[in-house]
Amino acid sequence: MASVERVGTSRDLARLAGVSQSTVSRVLTNHPRVSAETRARVLKVLAETNYTPHALARAMKTGRTDSIGVFMSRVTSPFHATLLDAIARRLRSLGLHMTLWDVEHDDIAASSRFIQQRLVDGLVLTCATFDSPLHSVAVASGLPTVLLHRGIDDLACDQVIGDNWQGAFDVGRYLVDAGHTSVGLVTSPLVVSTARDRELGFRAALTEAGLTVSRRNTVVGGFSHSDGHRAAQRLLARRKPPSAIFAITDILAFGLLDGARSLGVGVPGDLWVVGYDNTDMASWESFDLTTVNQPVQAIVETGIDLLRRRIAEPAVPPTVVRLPCEIVPRGSTANTQVG
Amino acid sequence: MASVERVGTSRDLARLAGVSQSTVSRVLTNHPRVSAETRARVLKVLAETNYTPHALARAMKTGRTDSIGVFMSRVTSPFHATLLDAIARRLRSLGLHMTLWDVEHDDIAASSRFIQQRLVDGLVLTCATFDSPLHSVAVASGLPTVLLHRGIDDLACDQVIGDNWQGAFDVGRYLVDAGHTSVGLVTSPLVVSTARDRELGFRAALTEAGLTVSRRNTVVGGFSHSDGHRAAQRLLARRKPPSAIFAITDILAFGLLDGARSLGVGVPGDLWVVGYDNTDMASWESFDLTTVNQPVQAIVETGIDLLRRRIAEPAVPPTVVRLPCEIVPRGSTANTQVG
Repeated sequence: MASVERVGTSRDLARLAGVSQSTVSRVLTNHPRVSAETRARVLKVLAETNYTPHALARAMKTGRTDSIGVFMSRVTSPFHATLLDAIARRLRSLGLHMTLWDVEHDDIAASSRFIQQRLVDGLVLTCATFDSPLHSVAVASGLPTVLLHRGIDDLACDQVIGDNWQGAFDVGRYLVDAGHTSVGLVTSPLVVSTARDRELGFRAALTEAGLTVSRRNTVVGGFSHSDGHRAAQRLLARRKPPSAIFAITDILAFGLLDGARSLGVGVPGDLWVVGYDNTDMASWESFDLTTVNQPVQAIVETGIDLLRRRIAEPAVPPTVVRLPCEIVPRGSTANTQVG
Repeated sequence: MASVERVGTSRDLARLAGVSQSTVSRVLTNHPRVSAETRARVLKVLAETNYTPHALARAMKTGRTDSIGVFMSRVTSPFHATLLDAIARRLRSLGLHMTLWDVEHDDIAASSRFIQQRLVDGLVLTCATFDSPLHSVAVASGLPTVLLHRGIDDLACDQVIGDNWQGAFDVGRYLVDAGHTSVGLVTSPLVVSTARDRELGFRAALTEAGLTVSRRNTVVGGFSHSDGHRAAQRLLARRKPPSAIFAITDILAFGLLDGARSLGVGVPGDLWVVGYDNTDMASWESFDLTTVNQPVQAIVETGIDLLRRRIAEPAVPPTVVRLPCEIVPRGSTANTQVG
């Protein structure tokens, strides 16, 4: 390839094309009031020059990339997609870029390399699990880091999560108050704080009422619709099924509802179902799911505020924020007392 | 702040901490076989030094960032989340980073600035619309660009899309062959190639059979579940509703099914419903939706292959690939002939 002049800014480009900077801008934004000839000239210069990333040069000088690394898992799950959408919106409103790192298809070595490259000013982790060193790698890297949605106990790091224990406790009490005595639980592996805290909170409410969730009424599923569906087969296809089931996420509850439907179990007539997350889908007629609202906007805004503070003042002590989660009653539970 | 030595690599870090590079690596990846003392020493050096982004320096030198900019809209919509997931997986398997740009919450000026910063090696656009200059800005920037899922006619740019016209034509023929004569259409604004091609293909199949979709049987909705729901109210809450409706996306079809449910219209007994996209949710019992499969993996793999080719050889002529889409029959349509 021939040697080319390197240009770093639209001003360089304007100079080389012999037009004004605002003309360059109009060409690049496809503005209608640019003659075909001018447009062709600017694009020709653009194609011939090696338009050096000015932003990279600035990042080298300032140590800031204006980009935030966001670690997520399972973006196809409705709650995670909502979380991603809220993070994207918030970062954009602050003029920050998002480098998305989907840990679902990744190994820790690749994530570590990415973190060590330090191409971002800070990290948002929404997918922390007790059995992965990802959060330790992030914190040890010295990059400003915030954990959203899923927390890690005693990690010296800013964290913003819903109060999952209390939200699930309220679900337990709601079912107990309605008179349910045989209650089921569909949960996920306890490697994430959300699953653990929801299970503990729910069981605590039952214990307080002198009840328990028996082992045979407990299914440890995974994280998907089909896991909820399989749980329905296990809990409902027998002589004395529970009269109410708490699924610790909406997506598990959707699978449970579909499983109940396939077995001819009526909701809420034969069975009450409660989820957790209050995804948009929970309000659809197909599900009409009683669930617990996660304050996604507040989690994201508070978390990104903490991250920006830490980028500005790396030494401030870590803050852990727990935001309240409230039950949203819908048609998958009835308002009447059950016997 | 005190002046600090700038370190660019884990080798520098190892030297300053007086340990081997593999020890640094073990510390950063939270490996159990590191003594607490060594770990503390490495983290102290890390905290004291300004660990200069080595990757940035490399990017300055090579002009490559190993990052791809991905433009999306509505990541909360199930098909888009699936597309995002497939893109993330593919880029990751190639060792590339993803900078996600969610145009839903954005204006074209911000997108243009991002493109002009050239912090990425190439662009993937999944959200091209006829009424936005985004695709022109991308192509004019000279950055290697590929359009996935939504195309722009005659744009000199690599493009990989499903054959939406043919897929929708097949839906029309499927309904005609089953004996439907009064057919409804729920579509989106024709600013995207998918909506336009699906509407045209569907109408062409009816025309071939001597039928039409009347104006009162056509609803131009938006892109969401609630738009499908509203369409159900308009099409079904009247004396002579259509006996079959094609919704041009699954998400519209889900809203339509929920709307039909709320009106007490039986599917497929009173009404056949067909969607498009074959999202995972289409197979759930709640919907059991006949739909048209989009070959997401093939679209993404082919598209990213074309993008990598263009990064390596910027001058190759643009390629447009159209991949076949097949009907997936499920319970929202019956296999029997209707009258």
